[in-house]
Amino acid sequence: MKNFVFHNPTKILFGKDTIPSIGSETAALGKRALMVYGQGSIRKNGIYDQVTKSLQDAGVMLVEHGGVKSNPVLSHVHRGIALAKENKVDVIVAVGGGSVLDSAKAIAAGALVEHDVWKFFTGKKSIKATLPLSCVLTLAASGSEMNSGMVVTNEETKQKFGFANKHLYPKVSILDPTATFSVSPAYTAYGAVDAIAHVLEFYFTNQEPYTPVQDHFMEGLIISCMDSCNRVLQDLKDYDARADLMWAATLALNGLTGAGLGKVGFPMHMIGHSLSALYNAAHGAGLSVVIPGWMIYQAQRTPEKFAQFGERVFGKNSGSTEKKAAQGIQALLSWFVKVKAPTSLTALHISVQDIPLIAENALALAKIWNMKDYTEEKIGEILKLCV
Amino acid sequence: MKNFVFHNPTKILFGKDTIPSIGSETAALGKRALMVYGQGSIRKNGIYDQVTKSLQDAGVMLVEHGGVKSNPVLSHVHRGIALAKENKVDVIVAVGGGSVLDSAKAIAAGALVEHDVWKFFTGKKSIKATLPLSCVLTLAASGSEMNSGMVVTNEETKQKFGFANKHLYPKVSILDPTATFSVSPAYTAYGAVDAIAHVLEFYFTNQEPYTPVQDHFMEGLIISCMDSCNRVLQDLKDYDARADLMWAATLALNGLTGAGLGKVGFPMHMIGHSLSALYNAAHGAGLSVVIPGWMIYQAQRTPEKFAQFGERVFGKNSGSTEKKAAQGIQALLSWFVKVKAPTSLTALHISVQDIPLIAENALALAKIWNMKDYTEEKIGEILKLCV
Repeated sequence: MKNFVFHNPTKILFGKDTIPSIGSETAALGKRALMVYGQGSIRKNGIYDQVTKSLQDAGVMLVEHGGVKSNPVLSHVHRGIALAKENKVDVIVAVGGGSVLDSAKAIAAGALVEHDVWKFFTGKKSIKATLPLSCVLTLAASGSEMNSGMVVTNEETKQKFGFANKHLYPKVSILDPTATFSVSPAYTAYGAVDAIAHVLEFYFTNQEPYTPVQDHFMEGLIISCMDSCNRVLQDLKDYDARADLMWAATLALNGLTGAGLGKVGFPMHMIGHSLSALYNAAHGAGLSVVIPGWMIYQAQRTPEKFAQFGERVFGKNSGSTEKKAAQGIQALLSWFVKVKAPTSLTALHISVQDIPLIAENALALAKIWNMKDYTEEKIGEILKLCV
Repeated sequence: MKNFVFHNPTKILFGKDTIPSIGSETAALGKRALMVYGQGSIRKNGIYDQVTKSLQDAGVMLVEHGGVKSNPVLSHVHRGIALAKENKVDVIVAVGGGSVLDSAKAIAAGALVEHDVWKFFTGKKSIKATLPLSCVLTLAASGSEMNSGMVVTNEETKQKFGFANKHLYPKVSILDPTATFSVSPAYTAYGAVDAIAHVLEFYFTNQEPYTPVQDHFMEGLIISCMDSCNRVLQDLKDYDARADLMWAATLALNGLTGAGLGKVGFPMHMIGHSLSALYNAAHGAGLSVVIPGWMIYQAQRTPEKFAQFGERVFGKNSGSTEKKAAQGIQALLSWFVKVKAPTSLTALHISVQDIPLIAENALALAKIWNMKDYTEEKIGEILKLCV
């Protein structure tokens, strides 16, 4: 096992009827809040009213900044930073999924500096402090509610970049599974795919040959994400299924899966981000296209871990290492098909002729993430397996 | 899933050569430290010198309080509290295993009040604050290094009592697997048994019928504890095996396994504590005696979960629910035998005639822990299965 530091200070309030705690939890952090949210679904399902009432009852002054889009964009973050500064807010409240959370994190960091917040994403500046952040989560997917990462798209440069910094942990995140009841079947599946992708990146790209504690944990999370997603798709208001998916997605990227693994790459996200940046593919949909192709490519090189995956996650116990590996990949692909997540570039209406363009875009992120073993040619080869 | 709050603020530094960080980490918490440690093994393996040098280099004034025994006793805690008050220390440093950590926690709590610290254990007083605590861990077992629990034995009343309070999380814990190289085979096995027992308590006694996320996590931890313990017993200085066991034991009781399970009981610990309180049985040894008997008793009442345990942890896939349950229990018992953990009262030289006495002692703790479904008669029945 590699050396590591694990320190996740986020407080999680999980369960039914927890949303009304957002007021008192936020009031302990600040008195003037910028409330960041998305396209207005929270106005339909009543969460907007619950949150604003709770904040007002707790004496928190509110400035609103709605309109965050899926694949959140830098221009909207810039406007949030301006609002935060103008109104001298001292706390950020995120009400939404990963896109809202990541926008809120970027605003929380950008509000305390004079330079463009994008410099944090390109590595030209490093975050030293942020405004405190509280959160009401409405989508099981990104894990941003309990981690130190954020991803934002710069529309001008067509770059979807992300990174982690210890100042980006939310202080408190409220996870009420009922807040996800109105998430569509498609976005429920994309969320599960995203969570599974987070696990797979650590599972397959770490430096250590044998990490039994982490491997069992990760295999259990993948099984749990698939199982709970299946149950949600049978009944969108199955509380326990929504709860299992929500908690599994949070655990999938809160630092525990990677603790002790050493350096990991995020190649599937690296390529998937380009599909979002260039074609605005939903985050999870881009991933479900890239994952099987990347796995096929990588299993030719390191089949043992893929065989373990096939055996332990899908019970593929017979045959050669290569056979078990292939069966595991096929089983995951079949599950993507079952939950109607796209599994080919064609399904996203992306032409094979665009592969060089995508590879070029992805390479920019590979450079920032210091993934030196990825060239345009290699990314192109992987993308050809995603057709 | 039941509602829960999860907030574990302990910072973990894990790996080789991390012990010299204790100075700077502690200096950030206070300048006058009480250093709590055990019977002197840390003087033999060099850890004492590393820790004191690091603390001195960081400018931390040191008062020493060695001599903590396995199954730490209240009188020694009392002396530590007196020392802490006399010397006006502002931070506690624990260097040892669970016994040292729990003594240090009790001192950290007792140093800030005028009443007897035992009142916290009997529930007559509640902890409102503690001195900050840093730790260098030397035994993979209790999980105290990343949780809010502590267990201390009152020698006068022959009571081994424990409880949890949010102020008892260490601020920082340093986990260097090499610090456990000198732990004997017997105590390595007892430590693994203790960690497994922590998982089993949550696994078998929670209120929810179906908790897939937590169950997979817990099954993986049990498998990891057994696997890594086996490897350590082959080679006491196998770094990766020591590291896997150390991290698995920490994760086994850091709050994650129980998050969402609702109320759990700790019946195996409740009875095992009495074996320690009355006969000074090593904590893990008392547990390995009680676990199989309790499991046999409980499997007759709720066989389904035991069958799942047999299937997923030991691959017992065939036959009836009852058969799989019995095979799982037998497999765990066989593993205890393999690692030379005692599996009967006789092995601890405890007479069957003492069963009423043990049951009476255990019941006192059952009352404090509010385990209303345990009577002396029931505890006696379980103990008869431990013969």
